[in-house]
Amino acid sequence: MPRKEKGKIRIIPLGGLNEIGKNLTVLEYGDELIIMDCGLGFPDEDMPGIDLVIPDISYLELNRDKIKGIFLTHGHEDHIGAIPYVLRQINPPIYGTKLTLGIIENKLREHQLPHEPKFHCVKAGQVIKLGQLSVEFIHVNHSIADACALAITTPVGVVVHSGDFKLDLTPIDGEMMNVTRFGELGKKGVLLLMCESTNAERPGYTPSEKKVGKSMEYIFSTNPDKRIVIATFSSNVHRVQQIINTSAAHGRKVAITGRSMLNIVGAAVELGYMTVPDGVLIDIAEIKRYKPEQLTLITTGSQGEPMSALYRMAFADHSQVTLGQSDLVVLSSSAIPGNEKLVGRIINELTKNGVSVLHDHVVEVHVSGHACQEEIKLLQALLKPKYYMPIHGEYRHLAANRALAIDMGMDPKNIFISDIGKVLELDRKSAKFVGTVPAGKVLVDGYGVGDVGNIVLRDRRHLAQDGLIVVVASVDVEARLLLSGPDVVSRGFVYVRESEELMDEVRALATEAIENCLNAREGVDRMQLKTCVKDTLSKYLYAKTKRKPMVLPVIMNL
Amino acid sequence: MPRKEKGKIRIIPLGGLNEIGKNLTVLEYGDELIIMDCGLGFPDEDMPGIDLVIPDISYLELNRDKIKGIFLTHGHEDHIGAIPYVLRQINPPIYGTKLTLGIIENKLREHQLPHEPKFHCVKAGQVIKLGQLSVEFIHVNHSIADACALAITTPVGVVVHSGDFKLDLTPIDGEMMNVTRFGELGKKGVLLLMCESTNAERPGYTPSEKKVGKSMEYIFSTNPDKRIVIATFSSNVHRVQQIINTSAAHGRKVAITGRSMLNIVGAAVELGYMTVPDGVLIDIAEIKRYKPEQLTLITTGSQGEPMSALYRMAFADHSQVTLGQSDLVVLSSSAIPGNEKLVGRIINELTKNGVSVLHDHVVEVHVSGHACQEEIKLLQALLKPKYYMPIHGEYRHLAANRALAIDMGMDPKNIFISDIGKVLELDRKSAKFVGTVPAGKVLVDGYGVGDVGNIVLRDRRHLAQDGLIVVVASVDVEARLLLSGPDVVSRGFVYVRESEELMDEVRALATEAIENCLNAREGVDRMQLKTCVKDTLSKYLYAKTKRKPMVLPVIMNL
Repeated sequence: MPRKEKGKIRIIPLGGLNEIGKNLTVLEYGDELIIMDCGLGFPDEDMPGIDLVIPDISYLELNRDKIKGIFLTHGHEDHIGAIPYVLRQINPPIYGTKLTLGIIENKLREHQLPHEPKFHCVKAGQVIKLGQLSVEFIHVNHSIADACALAITTPVGVVVHSGDFKLDLTPIDGEMMNVTRFGELGKKGVLLLMCESTNAERPGYTPSEKKVGKSMEYIFSTNPDKRIVIATFSSNVHRVQQIINTSAAHGRKVAITGRSMLNIVGAAVELGYMTVPDGVLIDIAEIKRYKPEQLTLITTGSQGEPMSALYRMAFADHSQVTLGQSDLVVLSSSAIPGNEKLVGRIINELTKNGVSVLHDHVVEVHVSGHACQEEIKLLQALLKPKYYMPIHGEYRHLAANRALAIDMGMDPKNIFISDIGKVLELDRKSAKFVGTVPAGKVLVDGYGVGDVGNIVLRDRRHLAQDGLIVVVASVDVEARLLLSGPDVVSRGFVYVRESEELMDEVRALATEAIENCLNAREGVDRMQLKTCVKDTLSKYLYAKTKRKPMVLPVIMNL
Repeated sequence: MPRKEKGKIRIIPLGGLNEIGKNLTVLEYGDELIIMDCGLGFPDEDMPGIDLVIPDISYLELNRDKIKGIFLTHGHEDHIGAIPYVLRQINPPIYGTKLTLGIIENKLREHQLPHEPKFHCVKAGQVIKLGQLSVEFIHVNHSIADACALAITTPVGVVVHSGDFKLDLTPIDGEMMNVTRFGELGKKGVLLLMCESTNAERPGYTPSEKKVGKSMEYIFSTNPDKRIVIATFSSNVHRVQQIINTSAAHGRKVAITGRSMLNIVGAAVELGYMTVPDGVLIDIAEIKRYKPEQLTLITTGSQGEPMSALYRMAFADHSQVTLGQSDLVVLSSSAIPGNEKLVGRIINELTKNGVSVLHDHVVEVHVSGHACQEEIKLLQALLKPKYYMPIHGEYRHLAANRALAIDMGMDPKNIFISDIGKVLELDRKSAKFVGTVPAGKVLVDGYGVGDVGNIVLRDRRHLAQDGLIVVVASVDVEARLLLSGPDVVSRGFVYVRESEELMDEVRALATEAIENCLNAREGVDRMQLKTCVKDTLSKYLYAKTKRKPMVLPVIMNL
C-alpha cells in the first residue's frame, strides 16, 4: 500500500462489510486515528464450537500510538461486543452514551483486563475535540435507547457514520432522530456518508416502535384471563418499557426472568432509561402469590436459545415457571436467519403443552430497528454527501444501498462498496481505494482467542461428518516387527457393537498394511507406516461405507 | 397394545407427524394393510454427516403378509423417497400415477434391489379393489403434476387421505382439484379425513401457479436484453412448462442444466406431462452460438445447494456457463427453513459479479403447493368427516389444523392429533387411541442404513464442538512400568504449532496420571488407567481453555 498522502482521510473498515456484525470502522487523518464501534459477530454454521467472532485488529496494534479513541454508536453486541477482547491489546479512551457504557461495564465484570478502561460518557449533541479531528454524537432512533450517529469533522471535510438507525416519529423516549442536525450538516457540506445497509432491500419505512405497544394493548385486552409471558431482546429497553406500561394499565404485576434481561433492565432503571410505576415489578419467586391473570412475565429466549429462560420454561426446566393452558406466550421478535428452527422448536413444545403462542407472523409484535429504503434515502437527501459508502451488511445489502444512492441521483463513480481491510483515501477533490491492511475474523472459543483457525475448523467439520478411526500399534522398526496391536478405536463413525465384522476387517487390513510396510523396505519410518495405514483404511472404508472417517494412525516405535 | 378388535380400522402414521417429511401412513382393516406414501426426510442440524432420514418400518416387516400395496399420492421426495430403502425389506405392489412412477423408476437406477419392484400405474379416478378394501385416486392440485388424494373404502366407512394439495382454479394442466368427487364422498358420508397441515398457520388461499407465469411474463418483458437464468424445483413440471412457454413467446431458446432438472424434464416430456415447442430446447453446450437475450437457462440450485448447477455458476465453477452483467438470475422458489443462509450466499456472490437477481421477496416468482387455511376448510366442508386427523407437519401445524376444524364446527373430541407409531382404532361409532407400535427415524449415511444412531451422533456433535485429544501409551501392567509414550495427538482442538506449551503440559500430566495409577494400586487394569488419564486431562483442559475436547486414551499392555 502506498504511503499515506498528507491532507487525506483514510477510511478502513475492519468489520461489518460483506458480513453481518463485528462492526468496526477506522478513520485516519494525519497522525490521528479514531475507531467507530467495536462489535462482535456470531459464528456461521461452518464454524462448529466457536462462541464468537471478533475483528482482526493487528492494524490497530501497529498504529496504537495514533489511536485517539473508540467512539460507540450504541450498545448492541455487534457494535460493542469485541471491546473486552480489544482492550487486552489496546487501551484508548472509549466514548459513548450512558446506556452504552452501562452495558459495557456490566459485560466487563466477566473479563479480567490488564488495565483500567478509560470511559468517557457523552450525550447526543456533544462534540469531542481531538487534535485536528472532532467527533459529534447525533441522536438517532434504533431498537436500543441512546443510539447515535457520528459526524467527524476533519480539515478536509465532514464524514458521517450513520450507526444503526431508523426514523421513528413516535419514539418511546419522545426523541425523534435529529433530522434537523443532519440537515444543517448537509447544508454546510458533507464529504462522505457511511450509511448502514441492513434493510436496504426492504421498500418503504420501518414502522414505529409504538406499533408494538398497540399490538400489546390489543393482546392484553383480548386475553384478560391468561398469564402473559413475553419474550423479547433484552436490550430493547423501550419495548420492555411498553410491556411494563401495558401491564400496569391492566393491573398486572411484572416479573422478569433471564440473566441478560435482569441485567439490562436493572441498568436501564438505575440509569434512568426506564420508569417502573411503584409496586409493579415483583421478584420471580413471588409469582405464586398471584393468579395467572394478574401477571406478566418478561423473559429472554426470543431466538429460541437453548439455555434461555423461555427455552427452559417450554421444556419444563425452569425452577419458578411452569407453562400450561392458562398461559399466553408472545414472541416479540423476529427470528434472525439461522434461528428459525430453534424458534420453531419452542413454538412446537409450547403448543404441545396447551400454551397459546403469538409471534410476528400472526400479530405485529415486532418492528425492525433499521432504516428501510425510504429512510436511507432521507438520510442521503438530508446530508447530500459528495462520496458515499454503504456499510453494515452482506454484499447484497451493500449493493441494494448503492442502488438507492444512484436512484437519488448520486454519481456511481462517487459510491464505494468497500470491504474489510480495504483503504479508501479521500479529500475534497477525490476519493479512491489505495490498498489494503490486514483484516479478518478472529475466532473466540472458550478462553481461546485466535487459537482456532482454518485447520482446526476443517478437522472439526471432518470429524462431525464421518467421525474417526484411531489405529494404534507398537513396532520395532529396526527389527521390522509389529510388537503390539493394532488396536482400533472409533468414535462417531458406526455403532461398533453392530459393526463388529467391519471393525475386524479394519484391524486385519491395518495389520497387513503395517506388516507389508515393515517388510517391504529397509529403514521404513513411522511416517511411512502411518501413511500406509491411513491410505489402506481410507480406501477400504470409502468403498465399503461411502464415508470418509478421519483415520488417525499412532505408531509407537519401541 | 390390546389385540385388534374385529370390524375396526386402524390408522398408524409411521412418519410425517411432529416432523416435516418422511410421510408414511398405514391403514389396517382385518387382514389387510395398506401403506399410503413412503417418503424420506432431511436431517436436522443436530445430525451431522447424515444424508437422509427414512421411517422405521419394523412394524411393516412384522406384518409383511398383510400388506396389499403402497399407494403413492405424488412424486415428491417426502412422499416417495424411502421406497428404494423400504423395497429392500418388503416388496408389495406399488400404485401411483404415471409421473410418480416415472420419477421412482429413475431413482431406482441408482439402487440395487433384491427383487423386481411391482409397479401399477393408475390414473386419477381409478379405483383399486383389494379384498375388503378399495382405494380411489382423486385428482388434486399441487406443485408437481399428477398428484392425488386417496379415498379408502372399508366395510365400516370411507377414509380420505388428502396427500399434499391445494385448490388451483387456473392450473397449468387445466385440471382443477376434483372438488365434485370430494363433495360426492361427503354426501355419502366420510368416516375419517386425514388432512395435510403444512400451511395450516397461513390465512387465506394459496395463489394459483399461473400467478408465477404472469410474473415470468413481466420479467421477460422488462429484461429483453439479458440472458435469463431461472432456478426452480426440478419436480415442478408446470413451473418449468411456463418458463419454456414464456421463453418461446419471447423468441428465446431454452437450455437446461443440473442433473435432477435434466432427469425430470426428460421424464416429463417422454411421459407427456410437458410440451416443448419444436426447436426451443437446446443443449447447454450450444449456448455459445446465441446472444444472451436469445437465451433462457433453467437450472437446479434454488435452495443454494453447494453442488448444484446454480451454485457452480455463481462461484465460477460451471463448465458451460459463466455469469456476469448481462445475466438476470431468478430464484423461483422460497428458501426452505434452514436454507436461508445458503441461498443468501448465492445471492451475494451473484450480486458481486454484477448479476441481477430476483427472488420471492421482490417479485411473486414462487407460490406454495400447499393448501392455506381456507382451502383446508373447503376440504373439511366438502367431506364433512365424522373424525378428523391433521397430518404432515410439526406439532404447531397439526394444532393449527385442528383449530380450523374446530372453527368449522367439528367436535374437538372427534379430532385426533396423533404421532408416529400411535394407533387410532375406529369404526362407525367410536374412535380412540389404543396403543403404539415401533416407529422412529432410521438414518442413512452413505451406504449405511441405520448403523448411525444416537451414540454415534452424540460423538460427532462432541467432536465438532471441541475436537479430540488421543493419548497413547504402552505399559507393562504386571511390572507397573510405563514403557513408551504417552504420545499425544490432537485434531480439531487447538492449532498445535501455536500451542506447544499446552500440549507439553498435557503430555506431562498424562505421564504423571499413568505413573501414579500404576504405582497406586496392585492389579490396576487398562480400564482404570484410561479413566485416570481421561479425568485428569478433561479437568485440566476445561480449566485451562473452557473447552471439553473428547479425550481418547489408548493404553497398550505389552
